[in-house]
Amino acid sequence: MPNQLKLGLPKGSLEDPTISLFDRAGWKIRKHIRNYFPDIDDPEITARLCRVQEIPHYIQDGILDLALTGKDWIEEMGIDMKSENSPVIHIADLVYSKVSNRPARWVLAVAGDSPYQKPEDLKGKRISTELKGVTQKYFERLGIPVQINYSWGATEAKVVEGLADAIVEVTETETTIKAHNLRVIDEVFVTNTVLIANRAAYENPVKRKKIEQINLLLQGALKAESLVGIKMNAPAAKLDAILALLPALNSPTVASLKDCEWLSLETVVDKNLVRDLIPKLREKGAEGILEYALNKVI
Amino acid sequence: MPNQLKLGLPKGSLEDPTISLFDRAGWKIRKHIRNYFPDIDDPEITARLCRVQEIPHYIQDGILDLALTGKDWIEEMGIDMKSENSPVIHIADLVYSKVSNRPARWVLAVAGDSPYQKPEDLKGKRISTELKGVTQKYFERLGIPVQINYSWGATEAKVVEGLADAIVEVTETETTIKAHNLRVIDEVFVTNTVLIANRAAYENPVKRKKIEQINLLLQGALKAESLVGIKMNAPAAKLDAILALLPALNSPTVASLKDCEWLSLETVVDKNLVRDLIPKLREKGAEGILEYALNKVI
Amino acid sequence: MPNQLKLGLPKGSLEDPTISLFDRAGWKIRKHIRNYFPDIDDPEITARLCRVQEIPHYIQDGILDLALTGKDWIEEMGIDMKSENSPVIHIADLVYSKVSNRPARWVLAVAGDSPYQKPEDLKGKRISTELKGVTQKYFERLGIPVQINYSWGATEAKVVEGLADAIVEVTETETTIKAHNLRVIDEVFVTNTVLIANRAAYENPVKRKKIEQINLLLQGALKAESLVGIKMNAPAAKLDAILALLPALNSPTVASLKDCEWLSLETVVDKNLVRDLIPKLREKGAEGILEYALNKVI
Amino acid sequence: MPNQLKLGLPKGSLEDPTISLFDRAGWKIRKHIRNYFPDIDDPEITARLCRVQEIPHYIQDGILDLALTGKDWIEEMGIDMKSENSPVIHIADLVYSKVSNRPARWVLAVAGDSPYQKPEDLKGKRISTELKGVTQKYFERLGIPVQINYSWGATEAKVVEGLADAIVEVTETETTIKAHNLRVIDEVFVTNTVLIANRAAYENPVKRKKIEQINLLLQGALKAESLVGIKMNAPAAKLDAILALLPALNSPTVASLKDCEWLSLETVVDKNLVRDLIPKLREKGAEGILEYALNKVI
Amino acid sequence: MPNQLKLGLPKGSLEDPTISLFDRAGWKIRKHIRNYFPDIDDPEITARLCRVQEIPHYIQDGILDLALTGKDWIEEMGIDMKSENSPVIHIADLVYSKVSNRPARWVLAVAGDSPYQKPEDLKGKRISTELKGVTQKYFERLGIPVQINYSWGATEAKVVEGLADAIVEVTETETTIKAHNLRVIDEVFVTNTVLIANRAAYENPVKRKKIEQINLLLQGALKAESLVGIKMNAPAAKLDAILALLPALNSPTVASLKDCEWLSLETVVDKNLVRDLIPKLREKGAEGILEYALNKVI
Amino acid sequence: MPNQLKLGLPKGSLEDPTISLFDRAGWKIRKHIRNYFPDIDDPEITARLCRVQEIPHYIQDGILDLALTGKDWIEEMGIDMKSENSPVIHIADLVYSKVSNRPARWVLAVAGDSPYQKPEDLKGKRISTELKGVTQKYFERLGIPVQINYSWGATEAKVVEGLADAIVEVTETETTIKAHNLRVIDEVFVTNTVLIANRAAYENPVKRKKIEQINLLLQGALKAESLVGIKMNAPAAKLDAILALLPALNSPTVASLKDCEWLSLETVVDKNLVRDLIPKLREKGAEGILEYALNKVI
Repeated sequence: MPNQLKLGLPKGSLEDPTISLFDRAGWKIRKHIRNYFPDIDDPEITARLCRVQEIPHYIQDGILDLALTGKDWIEEMGIDMKSENSPVIHIADLVYSKVSNRPARWVLAVAGDSPYQKPEDLKGKRISTELKGVTQKYFERLGIPVQINYSWGATEAKVVEGLADAIVEVTETETTIKAHNLRVIDEVFVTNTVLIANRAAYENPVKRKKIEQINLLLQGALKAESLVGIKMNAPAAKLDAILALLPALNSPTVASLKDCEWLSLETVVDKNLVRDLIPKLREKGAEGILEYALNKVI
Repeated sequence: MPNQLKLGLPKGSLEDPTISLFDRAGWKIRKHIRNYFPDIDDPEITARLCRVQEIPHYIQDGILDLALTGKDWIEEMGIDMKSENSPVIHIADLVYSKVSNRPARWVLAVAGDSPYQKPEDLKGKRISTELKGVTQKYFERLGIPVQINYSWGATEAKVVEGLADAIVEVTETETTIKAHNLRVIDEVFVTNTVLIANRAAYENPVKRKKIEQINLLLQGALKAESLVGIKMNAPAAKLDAILALLPALNSPTVASLKDCEWLSLETVVDKNLVRDLIPKLREKGAEGILEYALNKVI
Repeated sequence: MPNQLKLGLPKGSLEDPTISLFDRAGWKIRKHIRNYFPDIDDPEITARLCRVQEIPHYIQDGILDLALTGKDWIEEMGIDMKSENSPVIHIADLVYSKVSNRPARWVLAVAGDSPYQKPEDLKGKRISTELKGVTQKYFERLGIPVQINYSWGATEAKVVEGLADAIVEVTETETTIKAHNLRVIDEVFVTNTVLIANRAAYENPVKRKKIEQINLLLQGALKAESLVGIKMNAPAAKLDAILALLPALNSPTVASLKDCEWLSLETVVDKNLVRDLIPKLREKGAEGILEYALNKVI
Repeated sequence: MPNQLKLGLPKGSLEDPTISLFDRAGWKIRKHIRNYFPDIDDPEITARLCRVQEIPHYIQDGILDLALTGKDWIEEMGIDMKSENSPVIHIADLVYSKVSNRPARWVLAVAGDSPYQKPEDLKGKRISTELKGVTQKYFERLGIPVQINYSWGATEAKVVEGLADAIVEVTETETTIKAHNLRVIDEVFVTNTVLIANRAAYENPVKRKKIEQINLLLQGALKAESLVGIKMNAPAAKLDAILALLPALNSPTVASLKDCEWLSLETVVDKNLVRDLIPKLREKGAEGILEYALNKVI
Repeated sequence: MPNQLKLGLPKGSLEDPTISLFDRAGWKIRKHIRNYFPDIDDPEITARLCRVQEIPHYIQDGILDLALTGKDWIEEMGIDMKSENSPVIHIADLVYSKVSNRPARWVLAVAGDSPYQKPEDLKGKRISTELKGVTQKYFERLGIPVQINYSWGATEAKVVEGLADAIVEVTETETTIKAHNLRVIDEVFVTNTVLIANRAAYENPVKRKKIEQINLLLQGALKAESLVGIKMNAPAAKLDAILALLPALNSPTVASLKDCEWLSLETVVDKNLVRDLIPKLREKGAEGILEYALNKVI
Repeated sequence: MPNQLKLGLPKGSLEDPTISLFDRAGWKIRKHIRNYFPDIDDPEITARLCRVQEIPHYIQDGILDLALTGKDWIEEMGIDMKSENSPVIHIADLVYSKVSNRPARWVLAVAGDSPYQKPEDLKGKRISTELKGVTQKYFERLGIPVQINYSWGATEAKVVEGLADAIVEVTETETTIKAHNLRVIDEVFVTNTVLIANRAAYENPVKRKKIEQINLLLQGALKAESLVGIKMNAPAAKLDAILALLPALNSPTVASLKDCEWLSLETVVDKNLVRDLIPKLREKGAEGILEYALNKVI
């Protein structure tokens, strides 16, 4: 099929969240044990599961048209998406909902009881990391000579075992870092999931339309992840007081009821505000407050 | 309890989807490790988990009153539901939602690199299948003599291993068929899940009412599986253009808002149309588009 | 952080339902493999996972401010929440939704084929139970001398193996009891999950406000578990007949539609009534009946 | 490779014991996830994993030359190995070591509390079994008309669930039978694992030599499973008393020691006799008794 | 069967090692999923799996005749096996082989960074433990008043979570203790597995014989766990030098060979000495050194 | 402890075989979930689990004294163990026993149906591999310019998915290669497990003695993996004929028996020769042939 969009989905920890995100966005994807091409219920797309680390190359070479990967691995591969003719185009940031509101960061960490307090203290030491290129540039920028070894996993344990003096590892809440009795002494790179496209694909009008459709609906599904719908009945007399409590962002739908002294209000609210909002709405006279989940908000 | 409906639920791959379907339809079912009778929160029903292959017999003999099974196994058992006095009555087809929109089919498949191109080429050959009766009738109808062996599982592998010349196996997307390098040369039987009842039970008015209630609500839950609810606000001036985009099937609910220049629209849309619909709705001026999941649509 | 609420969550069978309940109530909790303090996205709370059996002591000693546990373990620990100055305060009952509508009960059970018919028949016999204190008081109240042994699990099997003459064990549907061929001869204690607080914490106004917020939203989420939202369109002429079918509890929202001969109705209904209600609504003329799930009803 | 022996290994519960038996016999077999032909370290053999139920057919048709299967499935397929020109030849019984010393038997079982006491009581009743052919012949021989239904698994539960009046199922210790509160009223067929060959293969001298080698070494490995080697030192004066205790079957090796007053004894003993033998040997003066495992005894 | 020995096997972490120990001792035991009485291939014994904590009571009451349990739980139950008429008799210590050569000890541990240095520092503090009785006696003996709470598991975590000031927990290598950053400040009780019998059973001559047989063979199997057999050929001239290296404990068997200048030596050696012994034997002229595993050494 | 040997054990697929090899060699190693230093029952050693890819660096830098890794990863790291002053010393090859007798090889493979027949055909193409350095040198040596991409796993699938034109991947039996329909067109590097030491450690006499002891016993345990012990009784008259059958390598031990007409023979034989040897021994008159497993042969 001509102009079929070659879509790259990330394997590993992002795999199931991504498939579930596409599901809410409107595309069903099913993996197979014995087949590397997952089914997708849209004949204009073929999907492939790839390692996030390899995706930037595949987009660069045009083997994939559109894909999800991490900003960190684009940087690691030395791809500069800001340069005018970069074959890799940044379509959008995709910020998945999480418990922590902190972004994922690659940090420089040392043993909690070590004397190292700042990057300079690591002069001549051994650093272990999976993000060797970015780490190299970081230390060069600071002018600190170090020995950087590629880490094949279990990086946090390396300091504990005496195999490295410091590590550069990704973390959100520092839980694993702390569980290994490590101490963060600097932030090396802040990352997030991005949607990227190959330039030639993006300049093909048919593919571009599909890329934009996917982006619009992924954004709608992601937005819905952190929002809920609420509805309530409000006495006409208290409408203004109640409206004043609601976030300005999305103007609420106010519908007339058969009983003219009451109005029906419906709006979307940030999930983690609703626990503070509901007690206040009740205080102001709202009744029959219902909260429900949303698939998409566009 | 007199007139309690004896309900048969399918074990195996349909087991969890069926329990979840009943849950959305309004009945909670809980399985036990040490008990063959799952709990169901309706004193007018007793449930039992049975193999789909055995269910037709149990319905025929009146051991069960109502059950879900496959059309293929009814045929395999030689039951003709179209005959006037058949003890087995077809209540409804239950079409579960899937990635593929293709139905499940029992196909005749051979090694990809074999010389066999049509059923006639298999004259005198060994066919392996779990659906021996239907396969027998199929070859008799075509007048092709073959040796049919019952397969105790892993049927696709039989051709690869040289244990059979062809197989008759069920498939939706042919993924497993292709993963074994097999080639489909004919379709033997198209199947789907059906809700069937024992005639005597169906003629008992108390049981019939329960059967109809279950059918109505299962259908409502199944329909909801492939639909989503969407709502949006529309400028009064653009209402017609927007309504024109919406599927005719379910007429949308248009409610007046307090602000007279806007209307609120709400409707249900096919899940796999919504990704194409939403970009168009936005273009026509719809705002605050929300999508939410549905339990039932009746 | 001063006045941070120390929240105790129950480990074990209630662990995942509780985390999911808090999620619907508005708090995201994430467990860690290597850390005993689960993350919670509210800086005013620190959470801890504890055994239900130990929670009453921690609330009593003020090690925790607020926690979920079972009424049975409060009784087992000899804590009398009704006494005026009890350090443990009962905030609310939390009735989780289940298949059975029966409460959890600690029952006295014997071998199905044993001669024991009533508690008195167990005079001088060996009773095995995890709830030794409550069982002791029960037999003392009845004036029946017995030997009570603490059971380290698999209590139902003890009678089968000849290790005990009777057991006192918790059950809802008696499924496990019956699977061991046991017979219940009395009810020893009826229990349910409760939300309890330490008195000093409850008297601290900052903590009390947080306790009340948590209680309000947990109740809202629990209520939503057994309810669903339904909406439908109704001919204006049949409104009264349809309204008459709806449960009086929550007055439905009736909205005017653009087409004046129709009205839109929306209400919440008990999940296990809806299967009986929907057929009746259709009979009375309701159309486009939709059912959807709710996160909270307050 | 000409004259390569096509060996069939049983899938399922016998799979791992068989691979381990061949390992002790001298052939290493390794299964692959993505390949139906397990590796075997003998270029004169190709191995295949097949269902025990299908193996008799494959041997009959010459698709396999040599295989392990159950006597029950040979009977079920209607193959009479005693007839002179039977294409299926019985090479040997392979009696695996087990906890019970009882053979596997297909028994006729009914509900423990049912009135059925003997096969005759089942006249006109429903029998559920996986061994339909053998069961048919059994009831025909007795002249008792019954309805026999093929069971797709979980046969023991059928009586409990009211789906059958009796079952014919395989058992060694009756543990599962009793756990379902069933009662055995007759023995239908006694079975064991057999090594069978295709007649044509057996008459080919190259293949026959390989078949005999495999049989010799499998027997040696099976024999070793139920035996252990023991050695001890014995005072020359007490040799006869000690020799009298040892089983006559394998004459012990008596070696001279440097110290002429002592002799060294070594022999093989049945595993489940050794616990009674050792105390007696010690009593008679044996010292330094050692027991060790054996791979093969030939 | 009269005089059948009622044997109690420990559930949990000792379960599989115990079953495997009995296997090497000469008894095959097989557990069932749906049956509490494991099969044992000796009609003179019935076996039962019980919690180690409950076993002392069952032996005391004569519900079991012989059982394996921990010395700690006998102490916890307040049973004094040294008293003359104690219904519980100590048959033997069963020391399982482990990586560490350290015995299991219940230790008193506190947070690594806490100020507590000795038991006295815990006056008035909260101690959490599963061994409440023994801990109580320990602190009473020292005259230190503390609050002891029963711990329902995950005891090490209690100090980390701030739920207890100290714990009493069992450990061999202190690995888990250290992984929680705890510090041991005293040893409360040293324990090991013991074989115990009910006095009445022990005084019954038939049962006593069986008890002694079991003990003899368990000891033989346990001993074999830490020993290996080695054999070698030695030049007659170097026999004395080689014999001098071998442990005196088990005098080696020296056999004459056909070739008179060589002798054959065979002996048993401690597993963890053999790695030091073999290099020395080679140095002294031993050749063809073979090491093999042993099932029993008696 | 001074002079303690820092031993590196390989994580991953070699982890369990290595721990089991050390067990047979005489050292018990136990891993911990919460601790990176596995216990080893020899105070002169500390063990660490490391990725095979990282081990060469750790030996080079002296972070480890002795370790097991693959020859491929030493080459990949650019370490030349043949150079006189290399900090990495080759102690021994460790050839683990396997089903295949073929060594592990890194091969160049392409799609089975691609036109590529020899390395030259890949000029300008994309090669995917985990062994980037070795692959680079291989193509440079051949003078063929290609684009080599590092592969983060699932390398065989890359060609199928169209993500690479060829791969360089490790294989023994080519089973996985063939399951992906790939074709091997060249061999890039033959590898095996090696025992390597840091030069400084090797020159320290205390550490060197420990290294030699470990090597001697590992070799003894590895040798025993592919050998078995056999013993038999032989009529004195047939001794020569029987001896002629036995492999010359290890001269058998021939012991005199009490009965002078018989001799006892004992020897070690290659595991995969024994199945051919035993039938011949029986033919020549050997009796009571026993085979047993060996822990070590030195």
